Amino acid sequence: MSNDPEPRHLLTLNDLTRAELLEVLDRSQRMMDGEGAGDRPLSGRSLAMVFQKSSTRTRVSFEVGMYQLGGRAIFLAERDTQIGRGEVVSDTARVLSGYVDAIMIRTFDQAQVEELAHWSSIPVINGLTDQFHPCQLLADLLTLRQEFGPELLEERGVRVAWIGDGNNMAHSWLNAAALLGWELRIASPEGYDPDPNVVKAASRKTQVLLTRDPAEAAEGAWVVNTDVWASMGQEEEAEARIDAFSGFQVTPELMDRARSDAVFLHCLPAHRGEEVAAEVIDGPRSRVFEEAKNRLHAQKGLLLHLLT
Amino acid sequence: MSNDPEPRHLLTLNDLTRAELLEVLDRSQRMMDGEGAGDRPLSGRSLAMVFQKSSTRTRVSFEVGMYQLGGRAIFLAERDTQIGRGEVVSDTARVLSGYVDAIMIRTFDQAQVEELAHWSSIPVINGLTDQFHPCQLLADLLTLRQEFGPELLEERGVRVAWIGDGNNMAHSWLNAAALLGWELRIASPEGYDPDPNVVKAASRKTQVLLTRDPAEAAEGAWVVNTDVWASMGQEEEAEARIDAFSGFQVTPELMDRARSDAVFLHCLPAHRGEEVAAEVIDGPRSRVFEEAKNRLHAQKGLLLHLLT
Amino acid sequence: MSNDPEPRHLLTLNDLTRAELLEVLDRSQRMMDGEGAGDRPLSGRSLAMVFQKSSTRTRVSFEVGMYQLGGRAIFLAERDTQIGRGEVVSDTARVLSGYVDAIMIRTFDQAQVEELAHWSSIPVINGLTDQFHPCQLLADLLTLRQEFGPELLEERGVRVAWIGDGNNMAHSWLNAAALLGWELRIASPEGYDPDPNVVKAASRKTQVLLTRDPAEAAEGAWVVNTDVWASMGQEEEAEARIDAFSGFQVTPELMDRARSDAVFLHCLPAHRGEEVAAEVIDGPRSRVFEEAKNRLHAQKGLLLHLLT
Repeated sequence: MSNDPEPRHLLTLNDLTRAELLEVLDRSQRMMDGEGAGDRPLSGRSLAMVFQKSSTRTRVSFEVGMYQLGGRAIFLAERDTQIGRGEVVSDTARVLSGYVDAIMIRTFDQAQVEELAHWSSIPVINGLTDQFHPCQLLADLLTLRQEFGPELLEERGVRVAWIGDGNNMAHSWLNAAALLGWELRIASPEGYDPDPNVVKAASRKTQVLLTRDPAEAAEGAWVVNTDVWASMGQEEEAEARIDAFSGFQVTPELMDRARSDAVFLHCLPAHRGEEVAAEVIDGPRSRVFEEAKNRLHAQKGLLLHLLT
Repeated sequence: MSNDPEPRHLLTLNDLTRAELLEVLDRSQRMMDGEGAGDRPLSGRSLAMVFQKSSTRTRVSFEVGMYQLGGRAIFLAERDTQIGRGEVVSDTARVLSGYVDAIMIRTFDQAQVEELAHWSSIPVINGLTDQFHPCQLLADLLTLRQEFGPELLEERGVRVAWIGDGNNMAHSWLNAAALLGWELRIASPEGYDPDPNVVKAASRKTQVLLTRDPAEAAEGAWVVNTDVWASMGQEEEAEARIDAFSGFQVTPELMDRARSDAVFLHCLPAHRGEEVAAEVIDGPRSRVFEEAKNRLHAQKGLLLHLLT
Repeated sequence: MSNDPEPRHLLTLNDLTRAELLEVLDRSQRMMDGEGAGDRPLSGRSLAMVFQKSSTRTRVSFEVGMYQLGGRAIFLAERDTQIGRGEVVSDTARVLSGYVDAIMIRTFDQAQVEELAHWSSIPVINGLTDQFHPCQLLADLLTLRQEFGPELLEERGVRVAWIGDGNNMAHSWLNAAALLGWELRIASPEGYDPDPNVVKAASRKTQVLLTRDPAEAAEGAWVVNTDVWASMGQEEEAEARIDAFSGFQVTPELMDRARSDAVFLHCLPAHRGEEVAAEVIDGPRSRVFEEAKNRLHAQKGLLLHLLT
């Protein structure tokens, strides 16, 4: 219900400048530390959460986040709405713009998020598409900020390893590396490389290495990231993927190639014994539950950035 | 949890007197204009929303409306409850009466809404049945009030055109016309006439014309209304309906039969090229997004009428 | 998000001492009588409600209860989350512990609730399993407290009749009887006895009688309880159960065996003509709607016990 001629969106991390990214994370951390506790800066404001694909973390973290900020989130599963059943996206966007103050959408095709944003007079947040997952990256960066101090985000050339599928998380890491001037090393099996256009765009701004060798990617990294080999909707190709990704498990040995103080991140859910060894995800270098928890805090910072 | 021996309901528009209808709309508009902003007149009050048929607009508008008034709406999809699975309506009504302060139900048969109201000790709101859709009519009248001024609602003989299916919306327009003393012209194909009992009741109070000719219905109308040719649940008869309704599209030519300042309304979702031409619904006479937005505001007025 | 090293849980009634049970019920009643109205003792606190089996009463009563206490409940149906789809319970527990302040779970196997509690750093509430239903017992005891006065709960040897399936409700009554020193008489058909381990544990603390004769169970009882013959998920054995349970209907004649002021309870939904005669459940001795309503109030007392 905003009258902004140009609402702010978060369709990818590229919708943030470097300064805005740092400010969102700083604000998230300050709120996490208790700043403004009890304030209700989003009192009276509503967020529609449109899920065309289910998710515990995205759902609960946005819903609790809005509540803690004094606002209200409304969960719309696809089956509960007419969205995507005969109603054109442009109509849905304009109808929702009359009821709520922002839309979070989790869907398949990035183009649908872009069309929704095009027709909305309110901010649209990409809560996960097949191409990008910017909210998870905010949580990941907040986790690294907590681990290594806020000054890490000011440094250039911080090395990050991505092991496995060149998927939406890899793409969002490419965006983040470009924004921060960090070095990203992606080790993927053949056939699972990240989108060359996203790689090219990031490579113009920072150092990106694509390799088939997980050890090369992990070498000297501050953080080693991975993700499941078969995401929701890819169940039928799960077996072929297990073959293709053998050798891309994050093992204690692989972690040993990284810095001695390196941490392990994973956006969950995880399959122990597939993409990550139990000793790693359940071991002392794992920050996966802090990372999950940071979804809540990073998104609170994001909501304030977009809505105030 | 009301102790009212006789709770107020909105099962059809006939549950409102003319004065109450005007007061609900006036209050809705005043709140929309900012009156009482920040007040929480329904603080601590809950609304159970029972959906046996899904809906974006009804769901989001009631949920946001309750929140903006300080209350809380609870979304109950049929699959999430035991309502309709072995539990008799009378038990559900009495159980819910112990937990919440009002019930909104969207279902198929008007008789079920009536039975629910019979057993409830709290207000029941018809959020759509196969026979009536009074909440949409409140939004439609609020839209016309905004377009033509509040004095329009005081005038008698205002001509309204309904083009297409003699469905729940047509029936609620019949009720509204009877309440306001407006003239309603309904153009439907054979076999899709409104319920003769509803027509008869309205005809006793105001002028109602049933015709097979859309142009005759639109002639001199202040507002031209239509709806999809096949609603949810009528998919299997969609083809037969497309045949039957050809010639009942709201076209620019048809709009030209209406007053020069006439507006077009549609409760959405819409199928462009079927019941309405894209040039109409996306053109300067269309008020369909204002109308959708007014669901929120009209229902806030209604909730206050029923609960305070 | 608690820092308690040992969160309190309610996995069965055995998680409460007798004194705590009485205090929870006392507090529930005081709130019901208006004490602390308008206070928001759980402001900023969230409850995740995980449903692997649907339920109107549990859902609405917890959601309204959290809202009335100033907090927020989040409804997670199984299909809307990754819980139970590949994610291990230990991960779910730790992720949710980062977002919310308590978890209510309604599921099949008690072992799953116990595992969830083991890994959670926040309170876990059993909202129904195949083995136990402690929240319903809190409501039942609150209903008896209202009917016979608070001093009833202090008395020993109060006789309670359970007629029918030796199910989760029977087990929770065994727990309650043991806590309060009440006498429990359970009349079940052969093959539907309660779990011998639960019986044995209760028998060590109070008088428990298992019989095949409903009249013997009802004799002199303060309250006669029953439940549906086939619960959700038992539909395929419904016919065999109807045969087995014939003779176990709570009839007016059976009620006449109980005290003259005895009441009838049923956790609903009910099947009139099966486990209970319509004259009983709809008659003057029935307190089933008060009992349903007391879910809300008893759980508010429980939430405050666990969270403050």
